[in-house]
Amino acid sequence: MKKASARSINILKARRLGIDTQKEHVAYLRADSHVIIAEGFEALARVRINKGDLSIVASIHVVHSHLLNSGELGLSEMACISLKVKDGDKVEISHLQPLISLGSIRAKIYGNQIDESGINAIIEDVVKGNYSNVHLSSFITAFAGDNMNTNEIISLTRAMIKSGNRITWKQKTVVDKHCIGGLPGNRTTPIIVSIVSALGLIIPKTSSRAITSPAGTADTMEVMAPVNLSMKKIKMVIEKEGGCVAWGSGANLSPADDILIRIERALDLDSKGQLIASVLSKKVAAGSTHLVVDMPVGDTVKLRSIEAADHLKILMEQVGQAVGLKLKVVVTDGSQPVGVGLGPSLEAMDILSVLRNEKNAPADLKERSLLLSGELLELAGYAKIGKGYEKASAVLSSGQAYKKFIAICKAQGGFKEPKFSKFSHNILSSVSGTVHSVDNRKISRIAKLAGAPDHPSAGIKFFSPLGKNIKKGDVLYTIYTETSGELEYTLQYVNMEKNIIIIK
Amino acid sequence: MKKASARSINILKARRLGIDTQKEHVAYLRADSHVIIAEGFEALARVRINKGDLSIVASIHVVHSHLLNSGELGLSEMACISLKVKDGDKVEISHLQPLISLGSIRAKIYGNQIDESGINAIIEDVVKGNYSNVHLSSFITAFAGDNMNTNEIISLTRAMIKSGNRITWKQKTVVDKHCIGGLPGNRTTPIIVSIVSALGLIIPKTSSRAITSPAGTADTMEVMAPVNLSMKKIKMVIEKEGGCVAWGSGANLSPADDILIRIERALDLDSKGQLIASVLSKKVAAGSTHLVVDMPVGDTVKLRSIEAADHLKILMEQVGQAVGLKLKVVVTDGSQPVGVGLGPSLEAMDILSVLRNEKNAPADLKERSLLLSGELLELAGYAKIGKGYEKASAVLSSGQAYKKFIAICKAQGGFKEPKFSKFSHNILSSVSGTVHSVDNRKISRIAKLAGAPDHPSAGIKFFSPLGKNIKKGDVLYTIYTETSGELEYTLQYVNMEKNIIIIK
Repeated sequence: MKKASARSINILKARRLGIDTQKEHVAYLRADSHVIIAEGFEALARVRINKGDLSIVASIHVVHSHLLNSGELGLSEMACISLKVKDGDKVEISHLQPLISLGSIRAKIYGNQIDESGINAIIEDVVKGNYSNVHLSSFITAFAGDNMNTNEIISLTRAMIKSGNRITWKQKTVVDKHCIGGLPGNRTTPIIVSIVSALGLIIPKTSSRAITSPAGTADTMEVMAPVNLSMKKIKMVIEKEGGCVAWGSGANLSPADDILIRIERALDLDSKGQLIASVLSKKVAAGSTHLVVDMPVGDTVKLRSIEAADHLKILMEQVGQAVGLKLKVVVTDGSQPVGVGLGPSLEAMDILSVLRNEKNAPADLKERSLLLSGELLELAGYAKIGKGYEKASAVLSSGQAYKKFIAICKAQGGFKEPKFSKFSHNILSSVSGTVHSVDNRKISRIAKLAGAPDHPSAGIKFFSPLGKNIKKGDVLYTIYTETSGELEYTLQYVNMEKNIIIIK
Repeated sequence: MKKASARSINILKARRLGIDTQKEHVAYLRADSHVIIAEGFEALARVRINKGDLSIVASIHVVHSHLLNSGELGLSEMACISLKVKDGDKVEISHLQPLISLGSIRAKIYGNQIDESGINAIIEDVVKGNYSNVHLSSFITAFAGDNMNTNEIISLTRAMIKSGNRITWKQKTVVDKHCIGGLPGNRTTPIIVSIVSALGLIIPKTSSRAITSPAGTADTMEVMAPVNLSMKKIKMVIEKEGGCVAWGSGANLSPADDILIRIERALDLDSKGQLIASVLSKKVAAGSTHLVVDMPVGDTVKLRSIEAADHLKILMEQVGQAVGLKLKVVVTDGSQPVGVGLGPSLEAMDILSVLRNEKNAPADLKERSLLLSGELLELAGYAKIGKGYEKASAVLSSGQAYKKFIAICKAQGGFKEPKFSKFSHNILSSVSGTVHSVDNRKISRIAKLAGAPDHPSAGIKFFSPLGKNIKKGDVLYTIYTETSGELEYTLQYVNMEKNIIIIK
């Protein structure tokens, strides 16, 4: 018996079952398979699966039915992609060695500080897929709350930067902006990119798609121009126009973050350290040197008090400095949705209306965009302190920003106008009074139920800002959907839910 | 539209897919289903599924292939069992409200003490299946290590007692024994039950099957008598004989524990508080009043130092007192396997050999059984302090304990002799010297690879206790398997693994 083959005990035929288990690899094994009989089906067992040089770790689900033939190993979608297998490929299944890095999680649970090498080992295991969702949840919980000190957050940020690709630019100053999310319609990015690149700054902006919101910046931008750009294409757009608004996922920047963020969301767990590491690692990996962070504060967004925002701000500035990022945090009002539209197309209409200097353009979206652009210009040394807003405003009102935006869209593959959906329905006020509060989360949910972002033209137009006087019968908001079924479905929610907009 | 039906948006046809995802309910939904399109496939989304009065919460896996027809909802094995559905049954799928009890986990992460009502709410959600594995892992992590004080451990124990059934006995004194596991072959239970019930004590012992070990007490007992007894049957056996050794899982005692223990194992997380709550809640729910705890200490068992054992002992005694349990902890030697056999039948042979007072009966198994029986007799007031061992010894050597054991087996459904397996293979020493150390975990693994406990007669016989003089060519242990394939598979592991037994 050869030593090298001692672990090659089980060769099985791969079978793509078409089951999407998200990031966690799942291997489906027949209850009567050799592996299950010999090893027993231990609690939440994990195995290593190899195909040639490729190797993954997967959780076992045992199949008692005829979904699999004898000698077959079923694989989840992500497992097929990671192993590059097609039906019938031979794969090898073997034992998994214990995860050494779990020791650092245990040490953290006991209140110890974890050093950079310990945190590195965890993040390496995370990126390799060695952690199951159960391990990821334990890591996130143990390091959540105030359980990380500044040094540990810096270590985590550095580990996350190291975990993926890193882009370099020939320019010395590369700017970026980020919003600590949760505020519907706060779609300032395309406007800011247009303004600052029109003034000569380099801003290679990569954005995410929606996960729990009715639209991510990438979804909104995609209504007007292609966003699924290769790194080569992004570099070409930047070379030509100085700015871009691309979808960030292809670039493999800070891949640990993509894995961790799903779990954080499922736990609904507030973790300053992980938030900072997540944001700053992506920016550093993207080659940014100067960053403005928009931090909305309000009752129904992520940050609920000025104190919480200030604490986060200080920590973020310390970590930014440690990883070589010039950083300015701007605390903004997060009490209600920004602009009028929610959903990719409807938000794109707001953006274009601001860029085109239309009379009825949403003033709040314009103001926020100018404020943040001004801060970015000042931070990067492109405007004197106190003069950034003015400079940004001039570029916007002159039409140069709009011209730049269209040029960027063309460079990304071509500009197109956003469209309205087939169906719409007005929601009327049943009372008269003044708008007292708006639940951002419920408003977002309505736009999502209407079909956003999968149907880009679905969503809502929101006409009930705080303090507005409403008469009985006035339109509070309009729902847009692509199908009558979705409209009905959304109205069921609207009829059932309370306190979406409180009028007193 | 009726208010009550506002949430009854999606009716689908159930389909049993035959996939075992263990305790976590999984619902398989087509990518083109209404629910997925309307809600989006959020990160690790959870949904509520109702059938009549039954209701579960399930994690969503999205199916892109033709495993499901349009309008079908696939369900994992546990989900089918919990909802009592068969193929084609109509089930309703709806949104899941946020889990309020996650707030207590967050509070614990921030270092707060959680009160009894907070801990109760968590355990209620756990037992209802409202927590996914990700939530369970977060709960376990947040409350692990030294993160629970004595009050919280008491609250957790009480919450776990409340979470399931509770048995009552007419007798005032009901005894039990428990071993903080990890020591292979430490199968004292059937011997202790026989001794103390022969002396008139009531000991309704329920035991578990193996999960990560080559045999649980229930597996070993099952070789000699039926163990899958209903509560009614257990009561009948106790009425007649005073003692039993039954499989505990049917009784639904402390069901939270069954759910949590899988996750603790996957995390390999040491948690005194959860261990204590787990053990004591099961005993109180089973109606026990007096408990002796065997706490083996050794390098390759759960407790690795006398200090760790002492700390656990004090905490356990405090919690025991708070929940009305008279409790004695006995710290024992955990440096090597107990007895000769490992695996259900081979362990059963050791037990019978002790009960039959055979000359070559394993002395260590006999000693441990007498020691723990003696402690139990003293604790329950059935022997004077210092006289328990003697009393136990007399009952064993007189043959009364054996007679009682056979009577218990008959009451449980009939006694049978354990059998040897088809194949066996001696592992010989390649060196001469003295046995210096034995890796309990690796020894257990070999017995498992050989087929234990699924093949009851598989396992090993171990002939290399610490300090024994070994000559080159002596038999260190014998492997027993039911198939030649399993023998080969086990030998591959034996040939590859190092430091199973160290001889110097």
